[in-house]
Amino acid sequence: MRDNSWESKADEFSLYGFTDLPSVHERGTVVVTHGKGPYIYDTHGRQYLDANSGLWNMVAGFDHPGLIKAAQDQYARFPGYHAFFGRMSDQTVMLSEKLVEVSPFASGKVFYTNSGSEANDTMVKILWFLHGAEGKPQKRKILTRINSYHGVTAVSASMTGKPYNSVFGLPLPGFLHLGCPHYWRFGRPGETEEQFTARLAAELEATIIKEGADTIAGFFAEPVMGAGGVIPPSKGYFQAVAPILKKYGIPLIADEVICGFGRTGATWGCETYDFQPDAVISSKNLTAGYFPMGAVILGPDLANRVQAASEAVEEFPHGFTASGHPVGCAIALKAIDVILNEGLAENVNRLSGRMEAGLAQIAQNPNIGELRGVGYMWALEAVADRATKTPFDGKLSVSERIANTCTDMGLICRPLGQSIVLCPPFILTEAQMDEMFDKLDKALKKVFAEVA
Amino acid sequence: MRDNSWESKADEFSLYGFTDLPSVHERGTVVVTHGKGPYIYDTHGRQYLDANSGLWNMVAGFDHPGLIKAAQDQYARFPGYHAFFGRMSDQTVMLSEKLVEVSPFASGKVFYTNSGSEANDTMVKILWFLHGAEGKPQKRKILTRINSYHGVTAVSASMTGKPYNSVFGLPLPGFLHLGCPHYWRFGRPGETEEQFTARLAAELEATIIKEGADTIAGFFAEPVMGAGGVIPPSKGYFQAVAPILKKYGIPLIADEVICGFGRTGATWGCETYDFQPDAVISSKNLTAGYFPMGAVILGPDLANRVQAASEAVEEFPHGFTASGHPVGCAIALKAIDVILNEGLAENVNRLSGRMEAGLAQIAQNPNIGELRGVGYMWALEAVADRATKTPFDGKLSVSERIANTCTDMGLICRPLGQSIVLCPPFILTEAQMDEMFDKLDKALKKVFAEVA
Repeated sequence: MRDNSWESKADEFSLYGFTDLPSVHERGTVVVTHGKGPYIYDTHGRQYLDANSGLWNMVAGFDHPGLIKAAQDQYARFPGYHAFFGRMSDQTVMLSEKLVEVSPFASGKVFYTNSGSEANDTMVKILWFLHGAEGKPQKRKILTRINSYHGVTAVSASMTGKPYNSVFGLPLPGFLHLGCPHYWRFGRPGETEEQFTARLAAELEATIIKEGADTIAGFFAEPVMGAGGVIPPSKGYFQAVAPILKKYGIPLIADEVICGFGRTGATWGCETYDFQPDAVISSKNLTAGYFPMGAVILGPDLANRVQAASEAVEEFPHGFTASGHPVGCAIALKAIDVILNEGLAENVNRLSGRMEAGLAQIAQNPNIGELRGVGYMWALEAVADRATKTPFDGKLSVSERIANTCTDMGLICRPLGQSIVLCPPFILTEAQMDEMFDKLDKALKKVFAEVA
Repeated sequence: MRDNSWESKADEFSLYGFTDLPSVHERGTVVVTHGKGPYIYDTHGRQYLDANSGLWNMVAGFDHPGLIKAAQDQYARFPGYHAFFGRMSDQTVMLSEKLVEVSPFASGKVFYTNSGSEANDTMVKILWFLHGAEGKPQKRKILTRINSYHGVTAVSASMTGKPYNSVFGLPLPGFLHLGCPHYWRFGRPGETEEQFTARLAAELEATIIKEGADTIAGFFAEPVMGAGGVIPPSKGYFQAVAPILKKYGIPLIADEVICGFGRTGATWGCETYDFQPDAVISSKNLTAGYFPMGAVILGPDLANRVQAASEAVEEFPHGFTASGHPVGCAIALKAIDVILNEGLAENVNRLSGRMEAGLAQIAQNPNIGELRGVGYMWALEAVADRATKTPFDGKLSVSERIANTCTDMGLICRPLGQSIVLCPPFILTEAQMDEMFDKLDKALKKVFAEVA
């Protein structure tokens, strides 16, 4: 090690993930010690307003007393168990009942994982298992969209429609990425939004016909694409694709890892965009980031069919050691209550219009090409030329410079492509929102003055 | 629901994993509320001595005051953060330093996941990334062994050498399963253990030559196979395979998810069996089951090469939302201390001879074909005929009946194939060990009297 500092130790012993190494070499690792509301503090005592909510997930902030108490109490009561062999904790049973109750389904079944990645990976295995049991072992291809994000296991990374996965030699064969429903970027000259949506729906149907419906296991979609850069669907998108999937017997899975539990202003993104999935993938807000947990929630049709397939072979041979961990379940029970009943979702609904208005003001900057989002998830897309939607030269690293400038001012936001993403905790007050606006606006003006 | 009972709710809302459904229908779900030392208690107040340590992992028991306090304190201090974008918690930095310190390596780098499955899946991605960056994009095949267990993501299940994965259409192509180093079961008539080991080593070399070393990304092995039924390696196994892997430039990865942190009587299984891996996969005991966490620990050669490959593309594009979660790291720091410095590993060493002797006594039963194990992980294999090693008719479900009979007596042990596995918490006292022996012996005699 160069010295005994936190930064040197972090460098020495970490394989950094999703970290721009030139930035970290130049600026040093930020080692975080504690938090207060939406703020975090580093080893140098610097304060940051985290408009990233950790990674979308710390929606109740970094010191929520009710969540801390729920965790501490469960540690005192029963600090760990599994859900194999017909045994599970009481907390696990209670959470499953609650999840089905608040799900988009009248009935259903829950399977627990430790992350959204594992939940998507598990859902793929469930579909392969089900179709095989129903006499269709070739029904294995997975449809997702360009710019979608579904995780980082080899299979969930294969589902993810981002170019960086090529460094792993991914996607694996059989993972097909359809068009991204981002009208502003991908709409053709003269094409209306309705025509754009119809074109994507036609692409989906053509793909199904070309590949053969009996080779396609399922279609996965985030209601609003998150790590793709906050991309709400084009007008009528889900109303156009859902009937096509139904016609060809292809399950529609809503990846609600980011949208679920309040981010879009409703409990589920599929409520906000008014479509009915066959299963839901949940994680992140499910525990407000206080515990690693994911869940697959099967709607009634899939639940019944998967149960029948399992009975036929006497066992569904799948499960993670910490699936349904009692502490995670106790925290999730509290987090759901905090979000839905203690004012957090209400806060998002009350203030999302204010957030949009404030960001719209900032987006008048001529180097902002688009403001897009819903609820408490928004992106501002930087452009060198607004009229032609021309991005900045990639070498300028515009969004990274904006994010780093924000960080220097004590505001954390996230660069994604040439967008800046704002997805603050649901507890954000008006005054904290104004602080976010103010710092973001200054950072944008500073960086655009340098590069424009 | 049939009624409002815990059992009915569990049935209604759970997709059961790794659960024998006929057993659960007949016997009902066991819903667990709390624990004390190595005992757990269900909603009916029944007490069970858990000789399964949860799932190998609750090695400090179900109410360890030091671990509970470490968790509660960190929840009060900082209840959640990530490790992306050059930011991470102080607990994460401290744990990485500690993990390298106690690892089999003089230096190295750590990457965090939420499970052993994710850690193995991550290690595969690391190897694919590395070999691609080093100009060998075809170096992708993964070697493991029949009866190995490496997890349940689609890729880690593909690594797992158990037949049940066929229901998912797994393994994926490119995952090759070599022979299982279980001499008692797979040794040929007249073959010595040394000859058996030499035969497995020759099979490995022949496979490498046939497939081409430049198509093989890595070789993964549990020092003692766990979920395969507690199978220690045959004599000289790792000493025979390690030089072959080195000769052909194939990394050797020790999957220490079960063995690591004390289970074999040393910190690592690779210490017990005296071989040097290139990387270590850790989970389970890492947090004593008090938090979902896995870790990839790269030794110096892989750490340097992966770091160089990451610098070349500016970012290693991989990471889980809860990778390096501050609460998990604080718990792991305490768990490592509790196991290595507060008498738990010492307890295993002090009493493993007593465990072996007690089980050897029980194994005199003519329907036990083999007693095998090390440290605090043992298996008794049931046979219809000891001389010919003939198993019981599969329809008799002998090991499930033994495990269910034990459960009725208040002892939890695990049926695996026709073996009964005992892997108790490291805190087990002599009196508790005697309780385990007594109940196990009675259950074996009862079931063998019924089926023999």
